[in-house]
Amino acid sequence: MSRYEPRDPDWQARCLASFERQPIARAFGIALARVEPGFCEMRMPFHPELTQQHGYFHAGVVATLADNAGGYAAYTLMPAGSEVLAVEFKINLMAPAKGEAMIARGRVQKSGRTLTVCTIEVSVVENGVEREVALMQQTCMAVSAA
Amino acid sequence: MSRYEPRDPDWQARCLASFERQPIARAFGIALARVEPGFCEMRMPFHPELTQQHGYFHAGVVATLADNAGGYAAYTLMPAGSEVLAVEFKINLMAPAKGEAMIARGRVQKSGRTLTVCTIEVSVVENGVEREVALMQQTCMAVSAA
Amino acid sequence: MSRYEPRDPDWQARCLASFERQPIARAFGIALARVEPGFCEMRMPFHPELTQQHGYFHAGVVATLADNAGGYAAYTLMPAGSEVLAVEFKINLMAPAKGEAMIARGRVQKSGRTLTVCTIEVSVVENGVEREVALMQQTCMAVSAA
Amino acid sequence: MSRYEPRDPDWQARCLASFERQPIARAFGIALARVEPGFCEMRMPFHPELTQQHGYFHAGVVATLADNAGGYAAYTLMPAGSEVLAVEFKINLMAPAKGEAMIARGRVQKSGRTLTVCTIEVSVVENGVEREVALMQQTCMAVSAA
Repeated sequence: MSRYEPRDPDWQARCLASFERQPIARAFGIALARVEPGFCEMRMPFHPELTQQHGYFHAGVVATLADNAGGYAAYTLMPAGSEVLAVEFKINLMAPAKGEAMIARGRVQKSGRTLTVCTIEVSVVENGVEREVALMQQTCMAVSAA
Repeated sequence: MSRYEPRDPDWQARCLASFERQPIARAFGIALARVEPGFCEMRMPFHPELTQQHGYFHAGVVATLADNAGGYAAYTLMPAGSEVLAVEFKINLMAPAKGEAMIARGRVQKSGRTLTVCTIEVSVVENGVEREVALMQQTCMAVSAA
Repeated sequence: MSRYEPRDPDWQARCLASFERQPIARAFGIALARVEPGFCEMRMPFHPELTQQHGYFHAGVVATLADNAGGYAAYTLMPAGSEVLAVEFKINLMAPAKGEAMIARGRVQKSGRTLTVCTIEVSVVENGVEREVALMQQTCMAVSAA
Repeated sequence: MSRYEPRDPDWQARCLASFERQPIARAFGIALARVEPGFCEMRMPFHPELTQQHGYFHAGVVATLADNAGGYAAYTLMPAGSEVLAVEFKINLMAPAKGEAMIARGRVQKSGRTLTVCTIEVSVVENGVEREVALMQQTCMAVSAA
């Protein structure tokens, strides 16, 4: 199904365990909806506390969900004993992020030995209809776990 | 002092009033430490709920503070009756964001009629010493307030 | 076929006429291989003069082809009497750009009144086989022709 | 003078030798005007063949000069026996790039073991007056020379 073969047979347990240790995911109510080799989907409910002055999700919150989904998509393909770090990302905010929920789908575009490049699409669900709100291009790095 | 002349004599009151309407600033404890024509400094205390799996501020939280500081730096130079939107940004995460507090300093690099380009330096204060952790380059747009 | 409806019925002639006026396209041997509403494919042959110190296409040349393809993809959807300008772009260089030819395919992701967001995939053809080398995310602006 | 200490005492000869092997620098008339630990300035004359449809330097040519200056600024701090590769960059095109000459000044912002982050300012000289036209934020990687 996936065009990527994980290097670590235990990739799924490793990703879930890492995600479990993320305080911000609990604070924001982020759920790891789907994780496959080279792919990760995360969802979070709308939360009025996380909005900017117009009542939309703040761009930084959109970036948080997108960066998280991209990071774990990258992490699925990293070797056992590694940690994932976001090196940098760029995001275009294309429409107001308002609705009942936000979804980010991260996909690995290039999996290298040191660096992984991902793209992440972010959409919101408003009145049950999903529409795209942001697009991210991200670089992650595998580092050895201490 | 500043190389920029605001178009709106009431720029400071307009910026403060907008910032006051930002729920995420209250939720994260973000303070508008300094605002001048073309410049904005924001600070926030460390908060363990906003960290990722290694105990550092999540990259998305670093981006939230940086995007916010850049947006208000841009907003100081926009005309009366306008709102500011972040069109896109790119951030490099250069070191772990851990410490007692995080500071973002946004500077306008180009103030155009429609678009404003900012750069934002993010640092943390750890044991009283400040060190740089991230660098953002951002594009904002002025839109007419409804 | 395309999910975009051009605003200008004459979009194709307008795009071709603009491309014809581009000296760099002639200098680099860039061909407008395909143009559709919201899509543009450009190709250029390998040229040893445009390489960096390892014999690959220089990153700036990869960016030139990608930015060009994205700009014209955006331009297909802009109104009559407008010109297209690239506001900013971000590119990841994922593999050495070496081969007989380079191809860039630009796609509009969001077509707004002022701004258009595109993604562009760049590949090279080496020994007849195509492989991806770079990925760009770009913002263009429509400006009134003088 | 510089806040960076080169790891390779022979950094200057290494940078010059690498630059000498760059065909595109000869083709575009790029001169390495100044190189210091963590800094590089490059210049090139205006060339009508390298313009887009409005007679300005094409964005990709602006990116070529900027990426080159940033890459060599990064390379000054890399260890002996390494090569420099641009991983990714993001550029804002803030004003038309037209004039007698273009100048790019690259500065290292963070020099890590694997990755280096640079910012690059690009200006043009028009009728003897210099003005800023673009701003780049770039990530480079040190790789072992074969």
